[in-house]
Amino acid sequence: MVGGGQLARMTHEAGIPLGIRFRLLSDTPQDSAAQVVQDVVVGDYRDLDTLRGFARGCDVITFDHEHVPTEHLRALEAEGVAVRPGPDALVHAQDKGVMRARLTELGVPCPRHRIVADPADVERFAAEVGGFPVVLKTVRGGYDGKGVWVVDSAAEAAATTAPFLAGVAVLAEEKVAFTRELAANVVRSPHGQAVAYPVVESVQVDGVCDTVIAPAPGLADELGLAAQQLALRVAKELGVVGHLAVELFETVDGRVLVNELAMRPHNSGHWTQDGAVTSQFANHVRAVLDLPLGDPRPRAPWTVMANVLGGDFPDMYPAYLHCMAHDPRLKIHMYGKDVKPGRKVGHVNTYGDDLADVRERARHAADYLRGVITE
Amino acid sequence: MVGGGQLARMTHEAGIPLGIRFRLLSDTPQDSAAQVVQDVVVGDYRDLDTLRGFARGCDVITFDHEHVPTEHLRALEAEGVAVRPGPDALVHAQDKGVMRARLTELGVPCPRHRIVADPADVERFAAEVGGFPVVLKTVRGGYDGKGVWVVDSAAEAAATTAPFLAGVAVLAEEKVAFTRELAANVVRSPHGQAVAYPVVESVQVDGVCDTVIAPAPGLADELGLAAQQLALRVAKELGVVGHLAVELFETVDGRVLVNELAMRPHNSGHWTQDGAVTSQFANHVRAVLDLPLGDPRPRAPWTVMANVLGGDFPDMYPAYLHCMAHDPRLKIHMYGKDVKPGRKVGHVNTYGDDLADVRERARHAADYLRGVITE
Repeated sequence: MVGGGQLARMTHEAGIPLGIRFRLLSDTPQDSAAQVVQDVVVGDYRDLDTLRGFARGCDVITFDHEHVPTEHLRALEAEGVAVRPGPDALVHAQDKGVMRARLTELGVPCPRHRIVADPADVERFAAEVGGFPVVLKTVRGGYDGKGVWVVDSAAEAAATTAPFLAGVAVLAEEKVAFTRELAANVVRSPHGQAVAYPVVESVQVDGVCDTVIAPAPGLADELGLAAQQLALRVAKELGVVGHLAVELFETVDGRVLVNELAMRPHNSGHWTQDGAVTSQFANHVRAVLDLPLGDPRPRAPWTVMANVLGGDFPDMYPAYLHCMAHDPRLKIHMYGKDVKPGRKVGHVNTYGDDLADVRERARHAADYLRGVITE
Repeated sequence: MVGGGQLARMTHEAGIPLGIRFRLLSDTPQDSAAQVVQDVVVGDYRDLDTLRGFARGCDVITFDHEHVPTEHLRALEAEGVAVRPGPDALVHAQDKGVMRARLTELGVPCPRHRIVADPADVERFAAEVGGFPVVLKTVRGGYDGKGVWVVDSAAEAAATTAPFLAGVAVLAEEKVAFTRELAANVVRSPHGQAVAYPVVESVQVDGVCDTVIAPAPGLADELGLAAQQLALRVAKELGVVGHLAVELFETVDGRVLVNELAMRPHNSGHWTQDGAVTSQFANHVRAVLDLPLGDPRPRAPWTVMANVLGGDFPDMYPAYLHCMAHDPRLKIHMYGKDVKPGRKVGHVNTYGDDLADVRERARHAADYLRGVITE
């Protein structure tokens, strides 16, 4: 797996019972996954020769993030390396312009959008979609609210010149009137076998995923099924191998529109570690190795995941003890990262029959670990 | 953790979400756990200086097996190393003579027993307990039926001279009339917090654990409770820190007698990985680090574990694919070991509402992986 973050850490964890030998390409020996994997290559994923050396002896390579240059992946594939997901699929998670064009071609519902050339063009786009606010996104490199701007006026659009000056392509999108965000997670193997997890609600705070509720409360059966079918269709049409997260807006008028795609285990699927028969990490491993996929069904009526963000106190240990003592059923997942304000350093999962209780337990633990509550 | 077997492999797996930095002392770099752990020291656990070097920088050391010499552990402890379980507790899992003497002193029900000096003494012991058969065990070093002999006559006792000639102490025990074997698994922390898992039935074949059923079917509530209380009392009185497995005989007359003790994660607790809120491995880690313990309650009405033994075919891969395709709910745990006939190379867990179905699914997978059935 290329990339030493928490997704690689948890993928390795899920691969151990499958008997998988896991090799990691990590930026540093201190990265989250590099702490727990035996076979670590430290190197730069932007360097083709590093990737070549890393891939030698691997049956298949897969990814913790979308940042490996597409042309390097094409080169590896041309040299016979099994790259899963392959570059022709992955480019849709790397380049939002390519993704929007392809989904539109497929008739998959998306917010109205187009590539904009400069701030004046943003104003024209706003006029086309009924006015401000509009959303601007760099087509490559953004995540967790980075590389995304919501501009409310022509003046704000004119002020958002940095991406244009940096020469990166900018995608403008209408600001969708949505009631909430959902995610449809599916996993697909080279054989074409695919599984769909229940559609979840993803609660964002400041552009960062805060809480995920599985399944999405009160979601109409038809809309949930439609979202799963949409995700399965996207996975098939784009030739995705491995886990695909389709982030969705549920609109005021009861439709779903695609917001983002991720082709790797995703924050909206962390609940599956303790809440599903087979976790997203285990199924990602099974898919990229073309093993039969595991059952994606939930194990409890409700599972809630809450991200643990770093707070003002670098020493999280006393809070960690407290949370384990306070709730012996709590499932803690720490990433081995130093605590910095706002940094995702772990998550917690809770599950049970009573959503209010399950949600409160997750909320309490995440807030206590962050230090925003002390009892 | 000292020892690179599958117990260390699965303990590391369980420590990853807790954010634990895991160091391993392994005989070889190819051992089961050494394949998946970052920080591996290759060395001989019988060498005190190797143990000293290994322990430097560890907050606590714990064990995958009982074979580290007691005197080395006492030396480490005297030098300030946190050894959990400590040598004063662990000796009861290392030396069956010490274990029987101490349990008898505590009034814990055991088979009648005494150390025997030679084959003639075995005959005298047989006469004391009502005749043959009697069980002979070397006090140290046995496991999975090794170091254990059931002798049916004076002639057989006379033939079993090897352990006497080897100069190891031999314990004779009455052959208990038992209906089945049970195991009571508990975990205890240095704080004195303790949790008890449901008592399970352990089905042995040729002296090796074959299947574990959780909870033990049809076990009388009072007897189950008595077994849990017995295990908790033994853990406390012996000063155990970490996981304690108390292997029990359920007798024809409705009592439980202690067969063996193990102070580490144990085969009879593997079902907890998929069947309990907190696995034995996670609770062992939590205990030895003096973290609050996790909930030991089951997540399903029935969980069954079946060991996967090596069969005649070294390539288990086609069977592995078949089992995953056949039963998407199957939980496979492979140890990364080469297949040899009779060697434990993995286990499977199944869970659900219907015991017959759950048991059949585990049985099918274990038999298929071993190669004794092909459909």
